[in-house]
Amino acid sequence: MVELQKRKGLSLRRLLFGDPLSTSQLIHERLTKVKALAIFASDALSSTAYATEEMMLILILAGSGAAHLAWPLALAIAGLLVIVASSYNQTIHAYPNGGGSYIVSHDNLGQLPGLVAAASLLTDYVLTVAVSISAGVAALTSMAPALYPYRVEVAIFFVGVMMVLNLRGVRESGTVFAIPTYIFLVIVFVLIITGVAKWMMSGMPAPLPPRFTYPAVHSLTLFLVLRAFSSGCAALTGVEAISNGVPAFKPPEAKNAAKTLTAMAGLLITLFLGVTFLVRQFGVVPDEHTHETLVSQLGRAIFGGNTLPYYALQAATTMILVLAANTSFADFPRLASLLARDRYLPHQFSYLGDRLAFSNGIIVLAAVSSALIVLFGGATTRLIPLYALGVFLSFTLSQLGMVMRWRRNKGPRWQLKALVNAVGAIVTGTVLIIFAITKFVDGAWIVIVWIPIFISFFLTVHRHYASVAKQLSLEAHGDPSPIRRNRVIVPIGDVHRAVLAALHYAQSLSNDVTAVYVETDPTRTPRILEKWKKWGKGIPLEVLPSPYRSILRPLVSYVDQISDPARRDEVVTIVLPQFVTARPWQQLLHNQTALLIQMAFLFRREVIVVNVPFHLREAPA
Amino acid sequence: MVELQKRKGLSLRRLLFGDPLSTSQLIHERLTKVKALAIFASDALSSTAYATEEMMLILILAGSGAAHLAWPLALAIAGLLVIVASSYNQTIHAYPNGGGSYIVSHDNLGQLPGLVAAASLLTDYVLTVAVSISAGVAALTSMAPALYPYRVEVAIFFVGVMMVLNLRGVRESGTVFAIPTYIFLVIVFVLIITGVAKWMMSGMPAPLPPRFTYPAVHSLTLFLVLRAFSSGCAALTGVEAISNGVPAFKPPEAKNAAKTLTAMAGLLITLFLGVTFLVRQFGVVPDEHTHETLVSQLGRAIFGGNTLPYYALQAATTMILVLAANTSFADFPRLASLLARDRYLPHQFSYLGDRLAFSNGIIVLAAVSSALIVLFGGATTRLIPLYALGVFLSFTLSQLGMVMRWRRNKGPRWQLKALVNAVGAIVTGTVLIIFAITKFVDGAWIVIVWIPIFISFFLTVHRHYASVAKQLSLEAHGDPSPIRRNRVIVPIGDVHRAVLAALHYAQSLSNDVTAVYVETDPTRTPRILEKWKKWGKGIPLEVLPSPYRSILRPLVSYVDQISDPARRDEVVTIVLPQFVTARPWQQLLHNQTALLIQMAFLFRREVIVVNVPFHLREAPA
Repeated sequence: MVELQKRKGLSLRRLLFGDPLSTSQLIHERLTKVKALAIFASDALSSTAYATEEMMLILILAGSGAAHLAWPLALAIAGLLVIVASSYNQTIHAYPNGGGSYIVSHDNLGQLPGLVAAASLLTDYVLTVAVSISAGVAALTSMAPALYPYRVEVAIFFVGVMMVLNLRGVRESGTVFAIPTYIFLVIVFVLIITGVAKWMMSGMPAPLPPRFTYPAVHSLTLFLVLRAFSSGCAALTGVEAISNGVPAFKPPEAKNAAKTLTAMAGLLITLFLGVTFLVRQFGVVPDEHTHETLVSQLGRAIFGGNTLPYYALQAATTMILVLAANTSFADFPRLASLLARDRYLPHQFSYLGDRLAFSNGIIVLAAVSSALIVLFGGATTRLIPLYALGVFLSFTLSQLGMVMRWRRNKGPRWQLKALVNAVGAIVTGTVLIIFAITKFVDGAWIVIVWIPIFISFFLTVHRHYASVAKQLSLEAHGDPSPIRRNRVIVPIGDVHRAVLAALHYAQSLSNDVTAVYVETDPTRTPRILEKWKKWGKGIPLEVLPSPYRSILRPLVSYVDQISDPARRDEVVTIVLPQFVTARPWQQLLHNQTALLIQMAFLFRREVIVVNVPFHLREAPA
Repeated sequence: MVELQKRKGLSLRRLLFGDPLSTSQLIHERLTKVKALAIFASDALSSTAYATEEMMLILILAGSGAAHLAWPLALAIAGLLVIVASSYNQTIHAYPNGGGSYIVSHDNLGQLPGLVAAASLLTDYVLTVAVSISAGVAALTSMAPALYPYRVEVAIFFVGVMMVLNLRGVRESGTVFAIPTYIFLVIVFVLIITGVAKWMMSGMPAPLPPRFTYPAVHSLTLFLVLRAFSSGCAALTGVEAISNGVPAFKPPEAKNAAKTLTAMAGLLITLFLGVTFLVRQFGVVPDEHTHETLVSQLGRAIFGGNTLPYYALQAATTMILVLAANTSFADFPRLASLLARDRYLPHQFSYLGDRLAFSNGIIVLAAVSSALIVLFGGATTRLIPLYALGVFLSFTLSQLGMVMRWRRNKGPRWQLKALVNAVGAIVTGTVLIIFAITKFVDGAWIVIVWIPIFISFFLTVHRHYASVAKQLSLEAHGDPSPIRRNRVIVPIGDVHRAVLAALHYAQSLSNDVTAVYVETDPTRTPRILEKWKKWGKGIPLEVLPSPYRSILRPLVSYVDQISDPARRDEVVTIVLPQFVTARPWQQLLHNQTALLIQMAFLFRREVIVVNVPFHLREAPA
């Protein structure tokens, strides 16, 4: 094997993706809480880099004065997070083997809710990649505005890097992911502490007026406030990651996972509230001219513009946002492979690639999220209305599933546990409805239309596989009938060595060989017959007249004459000489007749087409 | 046959292209001089609609005062036309079977000059379509300025119409082409006579000052005048058409063709000088704001803007320019088929389609000329520097060929005849050089770079076909060795009805059948072996371990082991079960492994891959 692989020399592939890994190398490294926090939390924590800004962008539609409402909204979102985290805490204990929303909903609510959860999650994984990487690029271009015009290209580049890393098989277990997450945590804490210290030393003044004034283009309605709240809920995405990955923890798995979830929720609330508080105190508002992010503005206000801490903040933010996409690159292919195993997606999604990664899922995720980035011009704000809807749908279903589970399985204090999940389900369900209504025209309708389409695709695929399995079943239908007669036909256009090679092959298959010549130009026929006399090995040659110069039609009607589709024990084999040229472009200089004949008989049950290659050498230069 | 065709029901195709024509319907209608003039002259005559304008567009670079130089330049071009026409007159008599430049140059000067002529002509046929149709659209948008923003789309539409008509097999012989040509002739003569009458009645005044003043952005150098002259030479394109088509005339063919050529030259000179004279007298100059053509301006000046004669003029001009493209649609495929017959182009160009037209040539011409129209924004002026260079190159070569022919064949008064052709060659050669130099930067360089590339393509194709013919020659290499051993291998991924169908087929081919199972997941193997015991018909099953989960590599190395490429009398046949789904999209739900295996063995001389289709029924709804 090793020799063979060396011989193939797929060196570029090798360089990018590394040597193939043996199946026996598929081992699961167990994670400490410290590492697990870094790995599973990057998605959730990184959203603090844009959640405040997205709320504000809605609020300032009612004038820059409305920006101060970001603070109470942030408090509400923090409360929501506490409810969701408590609810997931119970899921972790109930599903120590990993309780993704698809599994929980499918188990407890049935097929359709399970598929709704799956469709929502797959959709949101794609959006996570698009949103996180777009936001990461925004952090980068805030620090380096010269890159702003190339934001789409830079984002696609990052998606490509994540794709290659994941095809190589970078699992979540890499320490490489822990470092940037902790750097980000440290630097944002330094920012918050420095900011709060500065504020206290200057005598705890009232919030500064907004740096830029925006006129009110919209009145400050409840609808607008709820719209801003919905945008801020992007902070909650990624909270479910730990419950998917329970088996990756060191034992006791569930306990460690639960503790990590609590720590993550605590950190997320602290960062989100800290950033939002300082944004208000320093009068920072979105800047629609420079496209600088709020966090970048805050960094410059607190650290100073050209300082090392400022650059460290922006670099760490870019890094964690790009790495946040990695959670999706791990979860999307894994969920797709589960769906493929359950026959809801093409089974190509269930193949482990060379490097033990579900390559097809990774490639599809990269392609679709890149397409979204291009379509939405790499603008986080334009993607946000599509984002998080799926997450809240899967939150709600997963928690409803847990309620059902408690009711069925009972157990100690089950009513209390069911209540916790029920509250979670009601709250996230309410947020879901608010989200769908307030973001509908901005883009949520796309997701609302898309999810049913996606589910009907799952069901169609499922129906197809079920039907195939039935048709292939030996138990149900027995062995197909054996073949008693195989008639071999060799269509020829001339008499030369490639034709004779095909004739030799035909003779090795059967004693029942007939050559046929489609006569498109009757003046050539005598010459063909003469050559046939000399070289045709006594095989009978049928001449089929073709007054309309078609090769296919006379051949098809000849096969129609000699075969009977009703007889399952007879086949016709068409042996075609085919040139294989030394260079691919030269293939274009030869007839595509072989291909056309193959196409023409593709749906004929009793006709099999064989190409006998004749290998041409390169012409002497 | 008729039944079969009815059954196929390709109704859209039938509607567009008509019923197939039998080869026996390929008859040549002979043309009277009156019809022939209309058919062969549309290309040449139609160029009077833009030649004057293209000269002027260069001249006004030296200020609108320089526009009066159009008149002496037009006289020079008329003189050039007399020389070229006299020269072609002799070609007609020498080549009564049609003396295109490719044939004349190839016959008398050798392979390379022949190919230069062919490359130049094919290039110019493409440009004729692009230029004529762009100019036709310009005539249309002069009358209907609202269409101006859609000029590219309208032009592509006209190209598409010409393509469909020609695929239907509208030959040059259609009376339909005669009518617009004569309408155009009549209306332009009416324009000239009315114009001259107006001028004489108003006391034959001196030329009016230009209607629009243009500042001089270039000094009036000899170079600029020669550049304008080169642009005007577009009037000469199409003159060679009659000499290509001599066999289409009624007998005495050569005599009738020569008379028609003389008539055409006379008409062309009259129209071109008439238009140029009136343009000068009425002070008409190009209008860069409305993009109205000179002929349209002249029409409005002479007939009045909203009159029937004016609209008739524009409609006839549009029509003749669009129909002028038809000459190329007849000549490009015909020349391409000659080159394919001589093995300089892929032989697909030599096939007569359903409707007895060289379909591939027609489609390529339409595609390439459409691409040019898009690339150059449908602007005649931007295409003109590329145009006519090829025509003059082929003029020169054709006439040089004639000189050589007279020297070799002698005959009565051969010195005088050789002199006529020599003068033609020298004059057109000089124009060629002037053209190449003055138009170089404007676009002629593209053609100068392109023609050698095109020729080297001809030669590469030629070398390939020659090499293939040698390799296929039975006389040179004899019959290939017969096949004494055919080992049949059936790779299986599971045991089900499709696999058994493939096994039955394999058993019908040979007694030497082995099944192989590539073991990507060792946990599945016992189940496969158990099923094989029950259903495997006693055929041996080899299990190939695949620790890296590749299907291909273990299979390739197994075939390597059992076969010996040096033995020409042994082959390995790989029989693959293949699903054929009821609907094409369902095919995507199944492995592409069969295709990959076929690709992997494509370049293996001794391995033949056969797909045994298993036809799946549609899943019940």
